[in-house]
Parts: sequence; C-alpha cells; structure tokens
Amino acid sequence: MPRKILVIGAGKSTSYLLDYFLGKSASERLQITIGDLHPEAVPPSIARHPACRVVHLDILNDSLRRKLVDDSDIVVSMLPARMHITVARDCLAYGKHLVTASYIGEELRELSKAVEKKGLVFMNEIGLDPGIDHMSAMQVIDRITEKGGRMLLFESFTGGLLAPESDNNLWNYKFTWNPRNVVLAGQGGAAKFIQEGTYKYIPYHRLFRRTEFFEIEGYGRFEGYANRDSLNYREAYGLQDVLTLYRGTLRRVGFSKAWNIFVQLGMTDDSYIIENSEGMSYRDFTNLFLPYSPTDSVELKLRHYLKIDQDDIVWEKLLELKLFDPDKTITLARATPAQILQQILEESWSLDDGDKDMVVMYHKFGYELEGQKRQIDANMVVVGKDRTHTAMAKTVGLPVAMATLAILNRKITTPGIQIPIHKEVYGPILSELEAHGIVFKEYEVPYLGYNTETQII
Amino acid sequence: MPRKILVIGAGKSTSYLLDYFLGKSASERLQITIGDLHPEAVPPSIARHPACRVVHLDILNDSLRRKLVDDSDIVVSMLPARMHITVARDCLAYGKHLVTASYIGEELRELSKAVEKKGLVFMNEIGLDPGIDHMSAMQVIDRITEKGGRMLLFESFTGGLLAPESDNNLWNYKFTWNPRNVVLAGQGGAAKFIQEGTYKYIPYHRLFRRTEFFEIEGYGRFEGYANRDSLNYREAYGLQDVLTLYRGTLRRVGFSKAWNIFVQLGMTDDSYIIENSEGMSYRDFTNLFLPYSPTDSVELKLRHYLKIDQDDIVWEKLLELKLFDPDKTITLARATPAQILQQILEESWSLDDGDKDMVVMYHKFGYELEGQKRQIDANMVVVGKDRTHTAMAKTVGLPVAMATLAILNRKITTPGIQIPIHKEVYGPILSELEAHGIVFKEYEVPYLGYNTETQII
Repeated sequence: MPRKILVIGAGKSTSYLLDYFLGKSASERLQITIGDLHPEAVPPSIARHPACRVVHLDILNDSLRRKLVDDSDIVVSMLPARMHITVARDCLAYGKHLVTASYIGEELRELSKAVEKKGLVFMNEIGLDPGIDHMSAMQVIDRITEKGGRMLLFESFTGGLLAPESDNNLWNYKFTWNPRNVVLAGQGGAAKFIQEGTYKYIPYHRLFRRTEFFEIEGYGRFEGYANRDSLNYREAYGLQDVLTLYRGTLRRVGFSKAWNIFVQLGMTDDSYIIENSEGMSYRDFTNLFLPYSPTDSVELKLRHYLKIDQDDIVWEKLLELKLFDPDKTITLARATPAQILQQILEESWSLDDGDKDMVVMYHKFGYELEGQKRQIDANMVVVGKDRTHTAMAKTVGLPVAMATLAILNRKITTPGIQIPIHKEVYGPILSELEAHGIVFKEYEVPYLGYNTETQII
Repeated sequence: MPRKILVIGAGKSTSYLLDYFLGKSASERLQITIGDLHPEAVPPSIARHPACRVVHLDILNDSLRRKLVDDSDIVVSMLPARMHITVARDCLAYGKHLVTASYIGEELRELSKAVEKKGLVFMNEIGLDPGIDHMSAMQVIDRITEKGGRMLLFESFTGGLLAPESDNNLWNYKFTWNPRNVVLAGQGGAAKFIQEGTYKYIPYHRLFRRTEFFEIEGYGRFEGYANRDSLNYREAYGLQDVLTLYRGTLRRVGFSKAWNIFVQLGMTDDSYIIENSEGMSYRDFTNLFLPYSPTDSVELKLRHYLKIDQDDIVWEKLLELKLFDPDKTITLARATPAQILQQILEESWSLDDGDKDMVVMYHKFGYELEGQKRQIDANMVVVGKDRTHTAMAKTVGLPVAMATLAILNRKITTPGIQIPIHKEVYGPILSELEAHGIVFKEYEVPYLGYNTETQII
C-alpha cells in the first residue's frame, strides 16, 4: 500500500519539497497529490511523474478539500499562513497529521488539546525562519546545557539575499521571497529585546538606524536589524534567565540606512490610500512626502529634508530605483504608499533569469561553563541554483519534506501542535540537511556579552 | 413654566457654561440639572444656586439617565466623546434636543434620519476646536463667496497654551486640557493636506519636524504642526476646489523640535506595556530606548543617538523634565511608554495656583476676487482668569451654552445632526462671543499661496 501525501499549495517554495517526495516515491512507496488553485503552473516534470497527481483545488471548496484530506495519510499545507486553520480543522476531523512552515496562529493553538487527544502530530514552523533557526539553535543550546553550561546570550539573524555572483545593484538586494513582507517589515509595534539584562525598545521609525554587524568567512560583512519581538521563544528555548536575547533580519551593509529613507518619507505606510495613484509618475509620488515649494526641485527638497550629503552613496541608490523619474508611472489604482513602493521596487529588484539567491543565518550563543564565559558563533550560507531552485525554496522546503516523511515513518511520534525544538525532531533532520549542503559552521569566539559593533547611523 | 436644561458631565470645561446658564436663569426662566458621577466636585457657588440641582448620575444607570432626559427640554452632554451616543439615543427616544462640543461619531451619524424626522436639533462640534474654528471660518468664507470671491486657500490652527505672564518653563507649555490627548497627538496615521493643488502626506515620526510659523501682534511667534486629516471639512465648508487646505495645532516656537525627541525615542508609543514600569527611575525609562553600553552614560548615548549638539537648548528642556534623574520614580504599574511619559510631563507641566492659560486660533483665507488674488489672516487670543476660569473652559463652554439657549428660544430650528457652519447658527453666536471678549482680528495680507515660513528642523 502506498502512503499518500497531500500537498496543498504548490507555490514558489515547493520545488525542492516536491522533488524530495518524488525522488523517494519508489523507495518509500509515496503517492503525492498536489491540490492547487492553479494546477497549470505546476511544472510538467512534476505533474507528469507517475507518483504524482495534480488536482485543481479552491481552498474554499469544502467538499473537495475534505475528500482529499480524508483520502491522504498526511497533509502538507504550503498555503499562506492565514489559510492553514481550515486545513488543520479537516486534519483533526479526519485524523490526519499536518505539516506547515508557518507560525502557529491563535486559532490553531486552540485545537491543541483535541489534536493531542487524537494522537496526531501537527508540526509547524519547520521551514527556514521559522524552522532551521529553531532546530540549529536548539541543537547548540541543548549541547551547552547538557554539558552543564548556563546560557547567557542568544542572538539569531536570518536573511534572504543575493548570491555574490548575482549581486549587481547598489542595494545588494533583490526580492527572493514575498515582496510585501519586505516592504512592511518591522511595522505594527516597537521591536523589543534584552541586552545584558536590560529591556530595550526600538520604535519602527528608528529600527533601520540601529543595526549590528556580522562577518562571515568568504562572504564578507552583513548587517542585522531587530525583529519585532525577540522574546517570543524565550520559554520554548528554555532561555528565561538569559541576559541577552535578540533576533533579527540580515541584509548587506548599507541596505538599512538606505531603506530608512523610505521609512522617514512615509513610503512604507500601508494604512491609507492615495486616491489618484494610477498614472502618477514616480517623481510625483516622491513629491507627495515632501514640503511644497513653487521653485525647488524634488531632488533638493529630499536631500535637505533628510540631510543627505552630496557624496552619500545612498543618493545613487535612490536614482537606481528611478524615484525622481517623471516618465515612469504607477499602474496601481487607489493604492497605499506601501503598495506603490512595492511596485517601484519590483521593477528593479526582481530576479533576472540567471540570478541566484542566497540564504544566510547567523547565531551567537554565550554561556558560562566551569566558571568561564564562552561564546560560540554559528553561521549557515546556502546559495541557490537558479530562479526555481532557489536557496529559499530549498531551506524552506526540505525541512518540511523531511519532517513529513519522518512522521509517516513514525520517527516523530509525540502528538500535539508543536514546533521543531526537540532532539527527536531536529537531530535527524539537521543531519539529513547536511547531506543536502545545508551546513552550519561553528566558531569559538571570546564572550563579550554586548555587541561592540552596533552602529548608529 | 421654567425651561429645563440637563447638563450631563460637569468636568473642567463647564465653569463658564454653567455660569452662563445660571446668570440667565431668572431672565430666561432656566432650571439647570447637573448629572455627574462626582456631584461633590461641583463648586458650592453653582450647586447651591436656586436654579440649580445636582444629581449623582452614573451614565450606565439607564433608568435614572432616561428619567432625567425625559424630564428636560434640552440636554447638554459634556461627557467624553465616546459616551455621547448613549445620551443621544435617549434624546431621540424622548424627543429632546441635544448639544455637544465633540466630533460626530459614526454611531451618532447613523441616527441622522430619525433625528430629522422627529424635528430635533442635535448640535455638535460647538466648542472651541471643533466649534469656534467652524463658525469663525465659515463667517469669512461666506462673506468672501457672497461678494463673488473664489476661495483658493484655507489654513486653520488652534492651540491651548500658557498666558505670557504664566509662561515660566523652557517648553513654554503646560497642560491646559486632556494631557493624554497631547501625548498621543498626531498618532494613528499620516497627516494629509493639500498645498497648491498637490496632496501632501507626513508620517507621524516626521510630523513635528515640519512646522509652519505664525506671528500674532502683541503675542509674538507661534509654530503649527499638521493635524491628521486637514481634508475632513472640505465638503462641509464648500472648499472642494481650493488649492491649499491645511489644519493644525499651535505651539510656542521650539516645542515641536523638542517633542520630536520623545517621538524619535518611542516614548509616545501607547501600543505595548512595559512590564516592570512600577518603581522604575526616570533615568532607566529613558535608557529603555537607547542602545546598550557597559560604559557610556545615558546622557551621551541620547545625545549621540539623536545628534543633539552640546549647545542645543533642547537638551535643557530634557533636563527640566528630569529625564535623566535616577531618583525620580514612575508609580504606574504595567504602563505603556505614553502613559509613563504623561506621568513625567504632568509632574512638570501641571498648572500652578496662579497660572493662567491662553487659547490661540489663526486662520488664513486666500481667494480671488475680480481677477485679483487676496488674503485675509484672522486670529483670536483669549487669556484665562485663573485655574478654574480658564480660556479653554470659556471658549469651549460659552458656544455650547449659547447654542443651547438659541435652540430653546427657537432661534436655531433646522432639525438634524449638524455642526455650526450655517449663518443662522454662527452669526448670533459669534456676535455674542464678542461681547464676552472672544474676538477675531482680521488683517489683509498679500496672497502667497504657499507658506514661505515653513521650517524643516
């Protein structure tokens, strides 16, 4: 009897996931059903594989969705996060395991007891970030505490970036994931973290002006800005007494200072609509956020407003995006500033045919062992193959696929709604990821306790 | 038969309102009922007046509230804005007129047709701002358009400030109205306005860095920052085709630049709670928003973070508030940054016994008449008598009181939910206000169309 895996949603991130399942379909007796709103978008190499069947599925079609879930042994939901709950309820009703790469939402959490009672495994946050970050962090933290060490510091940063060979713009950046999330990053509340036992808060409009530097052998310098809530996994990781806890996002050095210009102007605002956006020039859009003047140019007003020096490279970054172009026009009607900014950025920051992406993760673990303070820095760099087989798709998809198979094979058995922080889960998956080139390098470094390389732009 | 006025809510703003009614109680045959949660707080001079009766009223006590409404001829609600709707529904049910100084909320607006059908007058926004601003603006706008002029520009700024003789701190400011509103001013979305036909948007974190200057004879210089939505009354004022529309708040020059420090640090954020706020020193509170350092002082970190020069007077303003004091402590438990900042400011900015407040309003009207562009600037300055008889209470309370009597005397008869923008309303009230010293001075000035005195700090 083949084991039946239902994959709902076959978007960008599923190339490696599906390749993994199909590659093992013979040896592991797997049969894959892909349910997607756009079945025609599934590449023929996948769709025509004998172990694969593709079904047109509108997630709102209750009867078909339920039939497909009922007919599977395990369900993988790669849908946008807000849609998981519908699938999760079906899985609970029909007694099926579930795997997702998304954060556990409130509605999902409410199913906890029922899921546990039925002996089901609902594995979440097992992509890249969240996912590989949890697993790789917990592996080192568990190792330290098992040796009798006491954790003092944990910092963790992840970034979806460009491979050095494709890094050909002044921002050292293109969209390798959901552009909207990049434009809205950091909004919705102050960033909170702990440094040396002191709570710290950064409001959104200062977020991109307080970054930290990271050096990765062979890849040079990166900078990180704080995520909104670094304290979310304090309990889950067992870091209640840690002095420093800081999570963030990685970019190439200089990105944040330039991005801060959009924040300062108000171009990332998603809370109101610009009535006459359709047909507006990029130049007029920029001018919306500058004081009126009957004579001064948009350029000079912006330079003066944000005090940008004549020789500041940040200016060239704005020019590269054609922000002052009177001939480039916005095609979105009644759009928010954030939606318009996204359109302008997508024009410059979409991956070209030969472009490769790169995923970077950096952890710092500070601890005390036998009276001595020590620190381990660990980093992972994964470079993509092409526009379809991206590093992002690989690092998101493979852990999901591996967890799915491990659950099917009863190697992961603890029931309940969970994230991959237990050894039974992360141990085998991290080993298997290494075989796919997803490897962390560790370095013993002096413990500082605070970051000496914090920059204030 | 006496006419019965029910006044619900007898807070700070009602001294002049009640004096006005009681002063006319004999000539106009008025009987006043004050319903308040704290009747003991009503001054004896009012409570013991033969035409006055004070009732303990909890607004949630439906039966008593309805009884009082039913037993009145007209109701004045001076409650916080969100509570008006309950009173408004009673007024509709029992067929009573209603007067408030607050903005018309969505729920109230839904009663429009029913109110009109019953022939009731629900007069709102008839305090200072909104209130006197509507009336004084419409009087000039109507005069211009009646002469055949075409409106080109309207700007309007109001501020609750200190009288020059009580202006004794570096901020030239104390709280003369709801402190919470001052701390949260400008939050909740970008400020929108029109300048010379172009829409302009300012995000909250830049709001206090884009101010405009105003000069008032005998009172010196003021600055104004934009209100959130300057376009709200465009239709109501008949200014659909105007080139410039800008509403804002007045402060003494230099206030906004210093206030911007709180905004930049994140101290005005009301969206999250600081768990350990109780007993925290002012110094530690300030440090929450600054990068960690094992050696540098809070003072130097703040100067560096916000680039404050050694000789910038802004620094003295922070010292005056004791922001770096390790011995001053916050007494609020689990408070938001905004609540904590309010407590710190109230310590310095509460009116002293002899202090007098001052209300300032400034309008600009640009128009074209007979092929010529012209401009009228109009301003009003009202100085308070003492801490109870404030300029704020006078300018809020008197228009409410006058409108109430005018409705009782059937001088205002147009039924419906309305604001005071019609001549039948503003004409008599503005005349009567003049007799109480609330006077606008008008100046013919050259029409510029844009503001040459905009500063970018």
